[in-house]
Amino acid sequence: MVVKVYGPAYGAPKRVLLCLLEKEIEFETVPVDIIAGENHNPDFLKLQPQGTDLLGKTIEEQGLVNQWLEVEAHRYHPPLFDLELHIMFPNFVVRSEQVIKESEEKLGKVLDIYEDRLSKSKYLAGDFFSLADLSHIPFTCYLVGPIGKGYMIKERKHVSAWWDDISSRPSWLKVLEICK
Amino acid sequence: MVVKVYGPAYGAPKRVLLCLLEKEIEFETVPVDIIAGENHNPDFLKLQPQGTDLLGKTIEEQGLVNQWLEVEAHRYHPPLFDLELHIMFPNFVVRSEQVIKESEEKLGKVLDIYEDRLSKSKYLAGDFFSLADLSHIPFTCYLVGPIGKGYMIKERKHVSAWWDDISSRPSWLKVLEICK
Repeated sequence: MVVKVYGPAYGAPKRVLLCLLEKEIEFETVPVDIIAGENHNPDFLKLQPQGTDLLGKTIEEQGLVNQWLEVEAHRYHPPLFDLELHIMFPNFVVRSEQVIKESEEKLGKVLDIYEDRLSKSKYLAGDFFSLADLSHIPFTCYLVGPIGKGYMIKERKHVSAWWDDISSRPSWLKVLEICK
Repeated sequence: MVVKVYGPAYGAPKRVLLCLLEKEIEFETVPVDIIAGENHNPDFLKLQPQGTDLLGKTIEEQGLVNQWLEVEAHRYHPPLFDLELHIMFPNFVVRSEQVIKESEEKLGKVLDIYEDRLSKSKYLAGDFFSLADLSHIPFTCYLVGPIGKGYMIKERKHVSAWWDDISSRPSWLKVLEICK
C-alpha cells in the first residue's frame, strides 16, 4: 500500500510531508480542497475512522488507554519478558530459577490488579477494545503457551474472560496464521 | 511504498501486525531470524537509522525534543493559528483586530523565549535538527508570507538565523515544490 497524504496544500499535512521526506519514505499526495469543503464529502469521510478505534473517542477514554498502556509497559511486560527469556530462550540467558520465581510473583500481583479492574469494565480502558488490551496479546500468548503458565490467567475469572475475548479476535487469529 | 513489517514471528512486531489488521491497513512481512542473528546483518542494519534522526539519539535529547514539541503545540501554534485564521481566512471567521493584536503579542513573548534558547543552541532541542524544529516550519512560513509578519522573525537575531536554516532545508524546498 502506497502511503497517501491527503490535502498536502495545508499546514498540518505539510508537517507530515516534511517527516516523510526527512525519513526518505516514498509517498503520494491527494489534493483535498478544504476551502471548497471537500473534506466533508462522503468519500473523504469514509477514509476515517477506519477499522477499530484503538485510542478511544473522548479525551477521558484516551487518557485511560494511555494509562493502561503504561501499566503494560512498566508493570506487566517486564516480569513476563523475564519469564519468556529464562524459560523460552535458555541459550540467550543462563536460566535462573530465582528470576523465574520472582517474575511470576511480580506478574501475579499485577494480574490481581487486572482482575479487580476487569471486574468493573469489560476491557482495561473501559467497555471498548483498545490499544491497551491489544498490546498484551502477543506476550500473554507466550505465557499461556510456551512459558506454560496459563494457570495465571485461568485462575483469575475476569482476566480469563478478558483473555478468551481478546485472544479470539479475528486480527489475532490472522496474526497467528501469518506467523505459522 | 508498501508497509513492510520485519521479523513478524516475534512478540513486539506482532503488536504492529495487530494494529495494521485492526486498522485494515495492507502490509507485507519480511522474515528476520533473530535467533540466527540476522538482525545484525549489514543489510538489515542499513534499514535503520534512515534519513535524519528527528527524535534525538539519547534519552536526554528525546526529552528535549518532546519538551519543545509541547512548546510548539501549546504556546507557539495557537496564537500563530489565530493570526492565520483572522488574516488569511476572513471568510472562515469574522476578522477581529483585537484577536490579531493579542495573538501577535502572545507570539512575540514566545519568540523572545525562543531567541534566548536559540542563542544557546543551534536548534530548539540542541545542536541537531529535530521534529521540534520541523513542526514549526509550515505555519511559520505563513507568518513570514501571507500573514505578512516576517519582521517578528527578522527582528530576533537567533530566531532569524534558525528560520533561515530550517526553512532552506531540501525537504522543505521539496514540499513547497510539491504544493506549488
